[in-house]
Amino acid sequence: MIDVALFGAGRIGSIHAGNIVRQPGVRLQYVVDVDRAAAEALAQKYGAKVADAETAFAEANVDAVVIASSTDTHAELILRSAKARKAIFCEKPVDLSLDRARKCAEAVRAAGVACVIGFQRRYDPTFASLKARIEDGEIGEPEMLVVTSRDPGAPPVDYIKRSGGIFKDMLIHDFDIFRWIIGDEAATVYATGSCLTNPEIETAGDIDATAVTIRTRHGHLAQINTIRRAAYGYDQRFEVIGSKGMLQAGNHRPTEVVLWSSGAITADKPEHFFLERYRAAYAAEMAHFFEVVAGRATPRTSIDDGVAALALAEAATTSWREQRIVELPAERP
Amino acid sequence: MIDVALFGAGRIGSIHAGNIVRQPGVRLQYVVDVDRAAAEALAQKYGAKVADAETAFAEANVDAVVIASSTDTHAELILRSAKARKAIFCEKPVDLSLDRARKCAEAVRAAGVACVIGFQRRYDPTFASLKARIEDGEIGEPEMLVVTSRDPGAPPVDYIKRSGGIFKDMLIHDFDIFRWIIGDEAATVYATGSCLTNPEIETAGDIDATAVTIRTRHGHLAQINTIRRAAYGYDQRFEVIGSKGMLQAGNHRPTEVVLWSSGAITADKPEHFFLERYRAAYAAEMAHFFEVVAGRATPRTSIDDGVAALALAEAATTSWREQRIVELPAERP
Amino acid sequence: MIDVALFGAGRIGSIHAGNIVRQPGVRLQYVVDVDRAAAEALAQKYGAKVADAETAFAEANVDAVVIASSTDTHAELILRSAKARKAIFCEKPVDLSLDRARKCAEAVRAAGVACVIGFQRRYDPTFASLKARIEDGEIGEPEMLVVTSRDPGAPPVDYIKRSGGIFKDMLIHDFDIFRWIIGDEAATVYATGSCLTNPEIETAGDIDATAVTIRTRHGHLAQINTIRRAAYGYDQRFEVIGSKGMLQAGNHRPTEVVLWSSGAITADKPEHFFLERYRAAYAAEMAHFFEVVAGRATPRTSIDDGVAALALAEAATTSWREQRIVELPAERP
Amino acid sequence: MIDVALFGAGRIGSIHAGNIVRQPGVRLQYVVDVDRAAAEALAQKYGAKVADAETAFAEANVDAVVIASSTDTHAELILRSAKARKAIFCEKPVDLSLDRARKCAEAVRAAGVACVIGFQRRYDPTFASLKARIEDGEIGEPEMLVVTSRDPGAPPVDYIKRSGGIFKDMLIHDFDIFRWIIGDEAATVYATGSCLTNPEIETAGDIDATAVTIRTRHGHLAQINTIRRAAYGYDQRFEVIGSKGMLQAGNHRPTEVVLWSSGAITADKPEHFFLERYRAAYAAEMAHFFEVVAGRATPRTSIDDGVAALALAEAATTSWREQRIVELPAERP
Repeated sequence: MIDVALFGAGRIGSIHAGNIVRQPGVRLQYVVDVDRAAAEALAQKYGAKVADAETAFAEANVDAVVIASSTDTHAELILRSAKARKAIFCEKPVDLSLDRARKCAEAVRAAGVACVIGFQRRYDPTFASLKARIEDGEIGEPEMLVVTSRDPGAPPVDYIKRSGGIFKDMLIHDFDIFRWIIGDEAATVYATGSCLTNPEIETAGDIDATAVTIRTRHGHLAQINTIRRAAYGYDQRFEVIGSKGMLQAGNHRPTEVVLWSSGAITADKPEHFFLERYRAAYAAEMAHFFEVVAGRATPRTSIDDGVAALALAEAATTSWREQRIVELPAERP
Repeated sequence: MIDVALFGAGRIGSIHAGNIVRQPGVRLQYVVDVDRAAAEALAQKYGAKVADAETAFAEANVDAVVIASSTDTHAELILRSAKARKAIFCEKPVDLSLDRARKCAEAVRAAGVACVIGFQRRYDPTFASLKARIEDGEIGEPEMLVVTSRDPGAPPVDYIKRSGGIFKDMLIHDFDIFRWIIGDEAATVYATGSCLTNPEIETAGDIDATAVTIRTRHGHLAQINTIRRAAYGYDQRFEVIGSKGMLQAGNHRPTEVVLWSSGAITADKPEHFFLERYRAAYAAEMAHFFEVVAGRATPRTSIDDGVAALALAEAATTSWREQRIVELPAERP
Repeated sequence: MIDVALFGAGRIGSIHAGNIVRQPGVRLQYVVDVDRAAAEALAQKYGAKVADAETAFAEANVDAVVIASSTDTHAELILRSAKARKAIFCEKPVDLSLDRARKCAEAVRAAGVACVIGFQRRYDPTFASLKARIEDGEIGEPEMLVVTSRDPGAPPVDYIKRSGGIFKDMLIHDFDIFRWIIGDEAATVYATGSCLTNPEIETAGDIDATAVTIRTRHGHLAQINTIRRAAYGYDQRFEVIGSKGMLQAGNHRPTEVVLWSSGAITADKPEHFFLERYRAAYAAEMAHFFEVVAGRATPRTSIDDGVAALALAEAATTSWREQRIVELPAERP
Repeated sequence: MIDVALFGAGRIGSIHAGNIVRQPGVRLQYVVDVDRAAAEALAQKYGAKVADAETAFAEANVDAVVIASSTDTHAELILRSAKARKAIFCEKPVDLSLDRARKCAEAVRAAGVACVIGFQRRYDPTFASLKARIEDGEIGEPEMLVVTSRDPGAPPVDYIKRSGGIFKDMLIHDFDIFRWIIGDEAATVYATGSCLTNPEIETAGDIDATAVTIRTRHGHLAQINTIRRAAYGYDQRFEVIGSKGMLQAGNHRPTEVVLWSSGAITADKPEHFFLERYRAAYAAEMAHFFEVVAGRATPRTSIDDGVAALALAEAATTSWREQRIVELPAERP
C-alpha cells in the first residue's frame, strides 16, 4: 500500500485527491492546507486525515507527496520531500525563480527520489495520441509547430500579480508542449504581447495576449498565440507540420450534438475550461505518478522538464520586457 | 458547329442556355417557349433567335434539342425530336405516365438518336467522385444506402397539382441515385408518408414527407427520407455502406467560414437550393451531352434510366396509396 | 447506506459494479452468478461477497438489485425482486416474450417498487443534450427521425440463436430512442432485412441488416437502419427533423487528432463499441438508479418503456417474417 | 464596349483571359507577350489579336490593360499605362523595389486612372464573407490574427532567384490579408525562417519556411506561418480573434465525400493549388475590375494596398536578414 500526503486542498488539490483514491494500492493518508477547513472537508470526503507539514514529512510510511499548494510553496515542499526521501508529484511551475527551480532539480537528483511535474497536457488522450503518431513516423520529421492556447477569461488581478506573469503562469504549458513535440532545443525566443482585455492587468505589469516565436538549433520553427480571454471559450489546439504531413490536435466538446437551424449549422463550444478539458489527463497523470512510485515507469514529465519550460518562460519574459530577440544557451542535460 | 434548339425559357432553361453557349463548337440557334417574351429575352441574352417548334424541327441544321419545357410537353417533344433525328437532352421526368415514357424510349431506340436525361445529380463532383470510388473498390460491395433528400420549401400547390405527386416530382432523383449507386434491381418497394407542412398539399391529394424502403433482388437495402420543407435548408446527402467501409456524400456550403461565438461554433448552411447546389453538375451534364452529340461518349443518364426511375416512382406511389408492399417485375433491359 | 445485490458478473455486470461502488452512500454487498469464479473475482475486486440468489433476496438489508445476468433470467429475477420489495435495475430486454414482460411490469406496479430498465443510451451526454434541446423547443415539433445503428461485428452465432433475433436484441435500443425522441405512439411498423455478412446467421433464422419504418398516430415518420457488421466500426447516430430545424447526434471519437497526409485528411474512427461509446452513459444511468432508490427521482427508463420497446420489436419481427405492414394497437398507458 | 489589352499569356494570363471574355460589354482585343507563340494561342482561343506593347498603348480604343507578365515588367507597364490613361489591372507585386512601387502609385494618382492590384484572395467567397461578418460586428473588435499559408511545393530554384525572396513573392498575399482584416497599421515586424525543404533554396539566398509576427499601433497581434512545401497540400486558412468571438476561414475541398474505412475517417485534401483554390476569386476580381473601369465601383485592392504590402514584405526581409525587430514608420495615406 502506497501512502500519500496531499498538500493543497483547493480546486486542483481536490481533483488530485479524487484521482489518488482511485488508484489501486494507493491510500490518501494526509491532507495538508493552511486553510484548515478546506483540508478537513477534503480529508473527510476521502477518508483521510488532516495534518500539518511536519507530521506528514515525519511519518515514515508516507511514501509519496502530491504538491498542489500555491506556487510560492512548491520549492520548499520539494526540497523537504527530497530530504525526507518521498516520491514527489508537484504542480507546475516548479518555482517562479529559475535558480530556485534548478536547486530543486539538483536536490531531487541528489536524493534519488522520483519526481513528476504536473504538465497534465502530455497525458491528454488527444495530445498523447498525436505524440505517439509522430513517433510512429506518420509525418516524418516535425518541422513547424503552431500552438493555440486561449483561456475563456482572465483570473482575478490579485492572482495575476502573484503569478509570475503570463509566460510563467499560462505559457509554461505551451513551452512544455513545444519541447515535447518538436524535440529540439530552442535557440532564440521572441515574444511580444499586449494588454487587450483588462487595463488593470497592464497596471499590474502584465499582459493578457501574447505572440511567441521559437527557432530551434536545427532551424525548426514554433509559434504560440495566447489570450487570457477568448470570448468563445477555452481553446487548446496545436498542429505540427512534418516533412511528410501534418497532425492537428483539436478541442474536445461536451457533446456531439449539431443543430441545423434556419440560419446556420451549430456545434458545441469546446469544453469549458481546464478542469473539464483535461479531466482524463489529470486522471492519467496521477495513474502515471503511482506507476513511477511503484518503480514500473520513469517520469514522463520530470523536474528537468519543469526547469526547461521555466527557462523558456523566463527568456520570453525578457524578450517581451526588453523588446529584443533572446538567445538561449544550449540546454543542460 | 453543332446547332441547338432550346425548348423552355424558364428557370432551368436559362441555366441550360448559359451552359450551352459555353461549349466549344456549339451554337444556341433557337429558343422556343409559349411565353414569347421569355423566349425573346433569353434568345437576346445569348445571341439566339426565337422560333416555334415547327421551325426548329424543320431546320435541317439543328442537330440537337434541349427540352426544358413543362413536364407535360416532354413526351411529344421527344417523339418529334426522334422523328426529326435530332439528338435529345430532356429534363426529368420523361413523362408522368410510365407507358408514355416507355413509348418515348422505344422511339428513341428506333430512331437511333442520342438521348440524355437530366439526372444532373450524377454529374455533381461529390456524387460522381463517390461513385468512382465505389467502382475503385474502396468499400467493397455496396450493401446499404441511406438517402437524405430534403427541400427548403414546398413549391406552390398549383405546381404540386400538376407534378405527378412527390414520388415522380421529387423522389425521381433519389430513385435514380439508388439505381446508380446500388447497381442492383429493386425487388420490393415500401413507401409511406404524411402531409406535415401544408394541409393544402393533402387536399391536393399529395404528401410532403416520405419514407421509402427498397429491397433489391440480391437483398441489398435502401432507405430514402424526404421532406418538402426542411426548415434549415436544402439537404442532399447519401451514404453507402459496403462490405469494406462506408462512403458519405455531404452537402456543399457557400463558404468555409466558421464562427466561434460565446454560445456555439457555427458554420454555413448548405447551398440554398438545387440551382446553387448543382451549379457545377448542370454545367458538367451539358458538357457531357455535347460529348455524346459529338460521338465521343455514350449517355451516362439514358432514357432507359429515366424509365426505370419512373417505374420506381410509380411503384412507390402505389405503395403509399394502397398501403402495401409493392413487388417489382425484373427490369427489362 | 443502500446495499446492493448484483446479478451477473460478466462484461456488463463488471461495468455496473464499477459504477455502483462509485455512488456515495451505496455499497455493493453481494455478487451473484452461476459462474462462481467470475462472481468471486468481481466480488473481491470491489470488496463484496459472493452469494446465491436466495441469500440475496432473503437479506432484509439488501435494498436494491442490479440485474445484469442473461436475458432468460431477467423476468424471474424481476418477479422475485418485486416480491422481496427491492428496488430493481434490469438490463434490457425485460424478456423475449412480450407477455412475460407485461407480467413483470404488473408485478412491479403491484409491489410499488422502483424499477429502472437499462436503456443506457438515454443517459448518454450527447443524446440527453439533444433530447433536452428538443424540449427547449429548438427545432419545434419533432416530425421525422432517422436512426443509424450499426455494430462493428456480429456476436457469435450461438449468442444470436438465444438472442430473440436482431429486432429484440439490437434494435430494442433504437425502438426506445424512437419512443423517447418522437414522443408519439407507433401506428404502423414495416421491417425488412437481409443476411449480408454471415450465412450462418441466416441458417439460425435471423438477419444481420435491417431497414425499419415507423409511422406514428400523428403521421410522424421514423426510419432505422442497422447492420451487425459495419466494416468501419460502431456507428451510433440519429437526426430529428422538426418544424423549425434539425438536431443531429453524432458519434464520439477516442481523440481529436486529425492527420493531413499527402492523400487525404483523416480523423479517428468512432469509439470502438458500446462499452467505450456509452461509458459515461453507464455511469450516469447507475447514478440515476440510486437517485430513484433514494426517492429523489422517478425512473427515466421505466419497465413500461421496456415493455413498449419490446412491443415494437415484436411487431418488427412479425413484419419482417410475414412480409407485411403491421398495425399496432394504441399503447396502453 | 470596353476594349482590353492583356499583357502576359502564361498561366495566370490565361486565367484572366477566360474571365475577361465572360464580362458583359468587355472585349479582349490584344494579347501581348514576348513569347509570340503563347500570345498567338491565347489570342486565337478567345478571338483576340496579337500585338506588341507599342500598338496596344497607342490604340486609342483600348480602355483597359491587364498586366499578367513577369514581375520585372510590372512597373514599366503601369507607368506606360498611366501615361496612356488606360485603366490598369496588375498582378502582385507591383514591383520588387518599394521605391519603384511608390513611383508607380504616384504616377497612377497623377494620371487619375483606375488601378486594381491582383490580391485575389480578398475576392474569395470565404474570405470576403468573413470580412463582411467582421464589419457586421460579429466578433467585435479584431484583436489577433493567425494566418496559415502553405504551398504544396516550392517553385523551381530559378524562379526563386528572381522572385524577390519568400516575403515579397509568397507572403505578400498574407501581408495584404493582415492589413485588410486587422485594419490597423503595423508598428513592428519580426520575421524568422529556415530552409527546411531544399538546400538549393538556401544557396540561392532564400528560405522556404517563415514565422512572422506583427504588432500594430493599437497593440493588435498577428502571426503568419508559411512553408513552401506542405507535404499534404495547399493550406490557406486564417482566424481572427475579436473581443466577442472568433471567425475562421477554412480551406475549400474538391468534393464533400467522406470515407469511413476500417482504419479512419477520411476527407478530401484541400484544393490542389492557387489556380483551383482561388478559381472563383479570380473571376470575381476581374468582374470587379470592370465595374471599376465602368465607374460603378472604386478599387477594393488599390495600388496603395500593393505598396503597403510590399513595405511589410521589405520590413520582414530586413528582420529576417538582420535578425532584429524592425519598426515601421506610420503608413502614408
